[in-house]
Amino acid sequence: MPFTPTDYLPYDFANRRHIGPSPDEMAEMLNVVGAASLDDLIDETVPASIRQAEPLKLGRPKSERELLYHMAEVAKQNTVLTSLIGMGYHDTVMPPAIQRNVFENPAWYTSYTPYQPEISQGRLEALLNYQTMISDLTGLAIANASLLDEATACAEAMTMAQRGSKSKATAFFVDENCHPQNIAVMQTRAAPLGIEVIVGAPEDLDPEAVFGAIFQYPGTYGHLRDFTDVIAALHDAKAAAILSADPLALTILKEPGAMGADIAVGSTQRFGVPLGYGGPHAAYLACRDSYKRSMPGRLVGVSVDSHGDPAYRLSLQTREQHIRREKATSNVCTAQALLAVIASFYGVFHGPKGLKAIAQRIHRKTVRLVRGLEEGGFQVEPEAYFDTITVNTGPMQGVILKSALAEGINLRKIGADRIGISLDECTRPATIEAVWRAFGIDRKDDDWTPHYRVPDGLIRDSDFMTHPVFHMNRAETEMMRYMRRLSDRDLALDRAMIPLGSCTMKLNSAAEMMPVSWPEFSKIHPFAPADQVQGYTTLIRELSAALCTITGYDDMSMQPNSGAQGEYAGLLTIAAYHRARGDSHRNICLIPVNAHGTNPASAQMCGMKVVVVACTANGDIDLGDFRKKAEAAGDNLAACMITYPSTHGVFEDTVREVCDITHQYGGQVYLDGANLNAMVGLSKPGEIGSDVSHLNLHKTFCIPHGGGGPGMGPIGVKAHLAPYLPGHPATGGSEGPVSAAPYGSPSILPISWAYVLMMGGEGLTQATKVAILNANYIAKRLEGAFDILFKGQNGRVAHECILDTRPFAEAGITVDDIAKRLIDHGFHAPTMSWPVSGTLMVEPTESETKAELDRFCAAMLAIRDEIADVAEGRIDRDNNPLKNAPHTTADLVAEWDRPYTREAACFPAGAFRVDKYWPPVGRVDNVFGDRHLVCTCPPLEDYQDAAE
Amino acid sequence: MPFTPTDYLPYDFANRRHIGPSPDEMAEMLNVVGAASLDDLIDETVPASIRQAEPLKLGRPKSERELLYHMAEVAKQNTVLTSLIGMGYHDTVMPPAIQRNVFENPAWYTSYTPYQPEISQGRLEALLNYQTMISDLTGLAIANASLLDEATACAEAMTMAQRGSKSKATAFFVDENCHPQNIAVMQTRAAPLGIEVIVGAPEDLDPEAVFGAIFQYPGTYGHLRDFTDVIAALHDAKAAAILSADPLALTILKEPGAMGADIAVGSTQRFGVPLGYGGPHAAYLACRDSYKRSMPGRLVGVSVDSHGDPAYRLSLQTREQHIRREKATSNVCTAQALLAVIASFYGVFHGPKGLKAIAQRIHRKTVRLVRGLEEGGFQVEPEAYFDTITVNTGPMQGVILKSALAEGINLRKIGADRIGISLDECTRPATIEAVWRAFGIDRKDDDWTPHYRVPDGLIRDSDFMTHPVFHMNRAETEMMRYMRRLSDRDLALDRAMIPLGSCTMKLNSAAEMMPVSWPEFSKIHPFAPADQVQGYTTLIRELSAALCTITGYDDMSMQPNSGAQGEYAGLLTIAAYHRARGDSHRNICLIPVNAHGTNPASAQMCGMKVVVVACTANGDIDLGDFRKKAEAAGDNLAACMITYPSTHGVFEDTVREVCDITHQYGGQVYLDGANLNAMVGLSKPGEIGSDVSHLNLHKTFCIPHGGGGPGMGPIGVKAHLAPYLPGHPATGGSEGPVSAAPYGSPSILPISWAYVLMMGGEGLTQATKVAILNANYIAKRLEGAFDILFKGQNGRVAHECILDTRPFAEAGITVDDIAKRLIDHGFHAPTMSWPVSGTLMVEPTESETKAELDRFCAAMLAIRDEIADVAEGRIDRDNNPLKNAPHTTADLVAEWDRPYTREAACFPAGAFRVDKYWPPVGRVDNVFGDRHLVCTCPPLEDYQDAAE
Repeated sequence: MPFTPTDYLPYDFANRRHIGPSPDEMAEMLNVVGAASLDDLIDETVPASIRQAEPLKLGRPKSERELLYHMAEVAKQNTVLTSLIGMGYHDTVMPPAIQRNVFENPAWYTSYTPYQPEISQGRLEALLNYQTMISDLTGLAIANASLLDEATACAEAMTMAQRGSKSKATAFFVDENCHPQNIAVMQTRAAPLGIEVIVGAPEDLDPEAVFGAIFQYPGTYGHLRDFTDVIAALHDAKAAAILSADPLALTILKEPGAMGADIAVGSTQRFGVPLGYGGPHAAYLACRDSYKRSMPGRLVGVSVDSHGDPAYRLSLQTREQHIRREKATSNVCTAQALLAVIASFYGVFHGPKGLKAIAQRIHRKTVRLVRGLEEGGFQVEPEAYFDTITVNTGPMQGVILKSALAEGINLRKIGADRIGISLDECTRPATIEAVWRAFGIDRKDDDWTPHYRVPDGLIRDSDFMTHPVFHMNRAETEMMRYMRRLSDRDLALDRAMIPLGSCTMKLNSAAEMMPVSWPEFSKIHPFAPADQVQGYTTLIRELSAALCTITGYDDMSMQPNSGAQGEYAGLLTIAAYHRARGDSHRNICLIPVNAHGTNPASAQMCGMKVVVVACTANGDIDLGDFRKKAEAAGDNLAACMITYPSTHGVFEDTVREVCDITHQYGGQVYLDGANLNAMVGLSKPGEIGSDVSHLNLHKTFCIPHGGGGPGMGPIGVKAHLAPYLPGHPATGGSEGPVSAAPYGSPSILPISWAYVLMMGGEGLTQATKVAILNANYIAKRLEGAFDILFKGQNGRVAHECILDTRPFAEAGITVDDIAKRLIDHGFHAPTMSWPVSGTLMVEPTESETKAELDRFCAAMLAIRDEIADVAEGRIDRDNNPLKNAPHTTADLVAEWDRPYTREAACFPAGAFRVDKYWPPVGRVDNVFGDRHLVCTCPPLEDYQDAAE
Repeated sequence: MPFTPTDYLPYDFANRRHIGPSPDEMAEMLNVVGAASLDDLIDETVPASIRQAEPLKLGRPKSERELLYHMAEVAKQNTVLTSLIGMGYHDTVMPPAIQRNVFENPAWYTSYTPYQPEISQGRLEALLNYQTMISDLTGLAIANASLLDEATACAEAMTMAQRGSKSKATAFFVDENCHPQNIAVMQTRAAPLGIEVIVGAPEDLDPEAVFGAIFQYPGTYGHLRDFTDVIAALHDAKAAAILSADPLALTILKEPGAMGADIAVGSTQRFGVPLGYGGPHAAYLACRDSYKRSMPGRLVGVSVDSHGDPAYRLSLQTREQHIRREKATSNVCTAQALLAVIASFYGVFHGPKGLKAIAQRIHRKTVRLVRGLEEGGFQVEPEAYFDTITVNTGPMQGVILKSALAEGINLRKIGADRIGISLDECTRPATIEAVWRAFGIDRKDDDWTPHYRVPDGLIRDSDFMTHPVFHMNRAETEMMRYMRRLSDRDLALDRAMIPLGSCTMKLNSAAEMMPVSWPEFSKIHPFAPADQVQGYTTLIRELSAALCTITGYDDMSMQPNSGAQGEYAGLLTIAAYHRARGDSHRNICLIPVNAHGTNPASAQMCGMKVVVVACTANGDIDLGDFRKKAEAAGDNLAACMITYPSTHGVFEDTVREVCDITHQYGGQVYLDGANLNAMVGLSKPGEIGSDVSHLNLHKTFCIPHGGGGPGMGPIGVKAHLAPYLPGHPATGGSEGPVSAAPYGSPSILPISWAYVLMMGGEGLTQATKVAILNANYIAKRLEGAFDILFKGQNGRVAHECILDTRPFAEAGITVDDIAKRLIDHGFHAPTMSWPVSGTLMVEPTESETKAELDRFCAAMLAIRDEIADVAEGRIDRDNNPLKNAPHTTADLVAEWDRPYTREAACFPAGAFRVDKYWPPVGRVDNVFGDRHLVCTCPPLEDYQDAAE
């Protein structure tokens, strides 16, 4: 045989593409770490007591090519019809320039939540544009930077109304014209909080009986109604008024603010975001100024930087759950940043005139459709409508629905004798003619004389989107450059490691991302008939099965759209289980003091009482305290919530005991899956005593963070809990839904599925091992320079490590100074001051190469030297590279009177020379921003003034 | 009616997306220009005598959404089967990370040819990687940065051999095992040059009778042969030896250099570049050191910058046709830069081991296939092969071919009784089994024991791709960041205007680009049966018809892959026409002195004698001289080649007269279409007297430049020339082919077609008008500060204007200084010193907004002030912002002892503050680079040395 066959596998995704360190690099790293082999390191790190018995088996891993081939086969099982079902979901056109330059561009989709404003100015601007657009469209003072979906936004608005209104009533009124999934999610949310939900017709509303009310605008069956009077009546009774409004309709219809509404919510899906079988899409929430401090979700605001120039940042973060903990009233954490960014660019692309033209065209098409139906003898309601109508079909309903299917069109079945139709941006004359044919009407859509069916009093007469950003030159050249400029201002995974503890910023591979753009996945309505979504059914079934195998659970719900929503859904499941067993009184939830901030918030949302359990000095759960609290709870113990490996980055070997104690007192164990990236293939939550966990698919399973969303937080449960998983009006189940769509955000599930298929069981296990290796490598390299808090057995950390910066307080150096100085080195800071104040939590993930880890270590060691310089008086305490960080090019060209060189400022160790990332602004002033709250785009002159 | 309907068209591509200035901006610009209306400006600019009578009619323009819908319908007319036809085209896997981050990323595809090295370091590095990879794979000293396709590379190698060998013979030997299209293109090229092509078996070669010989390796029917002896014999006879070799095969087979070959050529298509029905793909050409100065095409080399650091640049540009003009022996201008970049990343992704593993797998699959066929009773040849075999089918050929089609597989029909099969990277076991079934063999592909059929003596025993770049960590995270870093070093259209005269760098819209990625267009073999390519047939027919309407020609050939190749094809057409009329003696081609440099080169390649015609002082063709030369040529006049509007950017009103004179003496008019962007909708070349033109689809019709290719240069002809357009072995025709594939690079034709469909006649005309407005606006704004050379009637310029920088010579300021200083302002320089030395030719195109034009004018005016400072002694002649440009961040942090501030250096007028583009290197030393020619990746220590 003349050849030496090479055993090199060019298509090995797990080892060659996904995992950062090469085999050679790993050998060097193990040497540094002081472990004989990777398996030895794992044995030293992960307690034998929790290791899974069998290796993970998930079939032969697929190459990228095989994966895409397989995905295409599954995608073909979906049938893409034209869906005119409406109910808050409408087909839309994502402008190709946005698709290519944002939706499919890692500079946008791999970025993290903009907690570090200096390296997030691009997406912060895009989100501020979003807020401004929403604020203008709704006519309300302030809008947040997106929520998970319209239904949860309704629920958030309900609880906001309760907090914000002065009414003492405990009931909440829900317009029967709300979309069914909105009603259902509000009902789910209301029950544990003791809110009585009254569903009825607006005319039957008794304002005195409720603390607030919500109305759909336009209504789910198409009705347009001026709510001004009913809102006034609510206000007279000190109750709050909420409108759930279609933002596109608001370009031509009287806006919620003009009707006096306190809060408006809705979905911006039809602003260029694909249907995607239900998500992800960005919901909005806007409110009057007086409600702003009880508003959930993220809020982008304008502050100033160290040069006094305007700079964006997240405002009022003190409201957020990770800071308020037990006082939080909302567990909102993940938003839909990427989708909000897309919707905002859609707004910038079209501008107010363009949006209005789109809305008018849709309305005119609807009027043409109605005229045809009416002239064909059908009775259509309502009289006034925007894009949605209801046709009285009598007994012909089934025949017409089938006839529409034959024309390639999905219509909405309403009751037994009505059909709903919603038109959209994509409706073509051929579509309208096909609908007519479905109704037995042979007619040409060729009379395009404009007609309108909106009452005069409901026509919008105010301007909106007047800011210059919505009036910039709309040439694609300019738009493309605007998108590029914004993305260049940000630092994302496509340029550097983002070592965020507990956030698992790993590779989001291109192959995993590609199917998301395919029409077979993106153009499916969430309520399309089951036989059209067989591809999704396959995907969800197989992904769920794989996740069950990985976690040791027996069933899975894909409904939650974020980790926090997963927690909430998991606790609801536990509560339902107790209720079903007659244990409704069980309402105590034990939560260790170092838990994720969302944990207590979620427990409270489920009506549970949080009892905090202490930790020992080394960061583990204080088993004695746990036992005491569990005993005290006794019969009332509902659940405990633990994180594994712990939020301190340690594999506690007492975890089984904690589970046993909980079970002993009749409680259920909720194991937070945020750290699952340290367990996959090594240990299964479902086997070590946990009853339910959420999985952050946007952490462990490669869905990109998108600058702060989308996310997916499915929950896995043991068999006894399975009957109590979230249900949905569209798919059934005994429990209520937590999300608008039955499967949350299904269009991003191909990403996680692709990851699992390309890695296989062995690859996933290897990834976990290398994640642990990478963390231990960093811990070892930085040891000595920094104290590593909380090590586990044998002095090992899990997949992350905590660096203590408190010793530097004496020198006046804060964790913030280090974080900002890391920007000069070209890095996103680790997680700051969590779970312990004054620390940095570093999680490198398995995807980072040794070279990048070394670059990071070099940066941290150089910073440590600078700290020593300050501590030992070699440089001024207030004028040094740490305090002045980050350094911008503006600093470079300005007068330089600092006690260190420009070179030292800008090219410290680890920073690329040629490819350096330059932050667009200096350090952002947080206090100023909260004191002078500006959450819409400031006028251009402000920039001018600041510059002067 | 309650609404005021808005007449705003959100989907208007022509006016809202493609054309830069908004209507309001245009009004302001017309005011500056001093024209009452856009139409008035056009009337003042374009002579009435050449205006077309009727407005351009091309049907209702489509919105982006309609376009993509329509394109999808047409795409569906193509049938994607598995093509095992071979002949130099093989299915391949473009790694998704490359697809997303390079192929579909405007930072890569909108960049220009890297003539300005300081802003092109990223793609220069990628191309240097390409050259290094090719040089290593072929075992030859030097490789260029790609040619148009393998067949033209063969033809280029043939003429190189003639120039480079010392043999006096005039015949050239072509191995009959060469791919048929390679043979045909060499024959086309040879004929006008008087080269006799001898096609035969290598064993029949008489070395004394030829100046060179070319062999295919592996042969088109699969044969592997060691050419060492025959090459030695050729060398003994002072003849040159060329191998046309498959680069993937070279990873396991003895390389051309080891056999003694002088030149190697081939296609890198199968390195990740889609089949695309024939192109675009990058061909390579490598040679021994002694041949390097007669090598055609671009050559990237390593030089140093002003800091002494290594920097890449294009080497030996003095060889190029735009400089050598009448002395040029090749008209190569456009390369396939983007495709070479993709192939080079494919090499970096897989590295030598990965490539070798891919090659071995393909070979093993082929061996398995053969064993099955042999055991099924078929006679297979050759005995030694890599991936291609020939099966003797006897009379069953047709039946088996049909049977294969039924299995979804295209095989190659050879003669009447043989079938060719080539396997590739995408071949799956299911494919092999399907082929067996097509041959009536029922067999499982499950015996994967490796077997080899390569003779020992042909096994490669040398290393290749040993440079660290091919051994970097192959994790996708690292690869993604490498691609991002390289693209960030470059300045492309996604960040700023590229105002290149005669190169028309206009918007390449995302919607136009999207269909190129669709499998229905990308996965089609160029020799797939006609009934599988109906979509392409429709596209080519309709695009040709539209281009005929636009140009006034009667027929169109899509074969030429570049403008220069179009010129060559056009002149061949003219020559064939003369020949057919018995006018073979007509061989004089009149070319004005200011013509594109490719014009004389093309004429010479067609065996024509170039006679240069003078220009008048104002840049127009000297009509008297033209008439004199035409008269002198008399009966021998073959053609004239003119450019319209002239290369001076002026609409000469004598163009009809020039055509008339040419026709009077029996010549044909070739009108160079490079400036067609100034004519579309206003004037038709075919109506003003021209007989043939090429169209640069990569200029006027939106195909992106890709950093120096791909291009498409189809030619339009009047009816009398149509019979003489290029033919092709695959599609017939009386004339020989000029390209490897019948339709050149069909997979990028959707771009131009989409452009035409979305603009419509009115939109295209408006684009032309605005292109003229934009140029006149710049001319007017810069007038006074700079002399504008060559204005037309009424003092107007056409779509570009020439700024004279010669007056600044006295102050020591060169056109180079201005070009480099523009980088500090964030601009790519205009075309330098062409068509007049010491000038800048500015073509803004219609796609640039007024804001961007103003930014450019601000930059030019600021530079003019700096020139005045030098001229008037206010700043040092040798140490000033112009001489030191471009300024890098390294300059900023270094000691600053310059007589101007850092601020003035880096943030001059027009430069963005926050979003500034920073060049990665200082000014590159051209002379040093040519003196120390290094055209492969230098060892890493060199960088170290240079840095020290």
